[in-house]
Amino acid sequence: MRYTVVITIELKEGMLDPEARAIRHALANLMFPTEDLTTARLVRIKLDAPDAVAAREEAARMCELLLANPIIHDYTIEVE
Amino acid sequence: MRYTVVITIELKEGMLDPEARAIRHALANLMFPTEDLTTARLVRIKLDAPDAVAAREEAARMCELLLANPIIHDYTIEVE
Repeated sequence: MRYTVVITIELKEGMLDPEARAIRHALANLMFPTEDLTTARLVRIKLDAPDAVAAREEAARMCELLLANPIIHDYTIEVE
Repeated sequence: MRYTVVITIELKEGMLDPEARAIRHALANLMFPTEDLTTARLVRIKLDAPDAVAAREEAARMCELLLANPIIHDYTIEVE
């Protein structure tokens, strides 16, 4: 069966996020004060798997092998 | 009141996405065949607004002025 997995990869708490800092400064210059701002990458993958559990496991292996760096990233997986 | 807005910015349908293509090829080399793969950027912002509607409108203005390029990007906003 075909599943869509949505993988969100973000920096671990406390990691420097220069992109977020730059966006926050630019927003402040445009008169949009923000309390906090974080960025993440999202990867949406359509794949074939026997069931939703297998689809999630396959996405987790993709994260471990390629998509995320376990030293600096946390990731979450949603199966649709 | 403080709201968290989650903005997802992705390329419009049909736009070339070289990052997605590179990830898909790398996954195929790791024996993960995928049917389709798209990427997006996610920006999570904490901001003060009088209500959820105002928070969403502020996020939409941020997208129009800075975060998204309306020629190539679509964006969605969730208010939490």
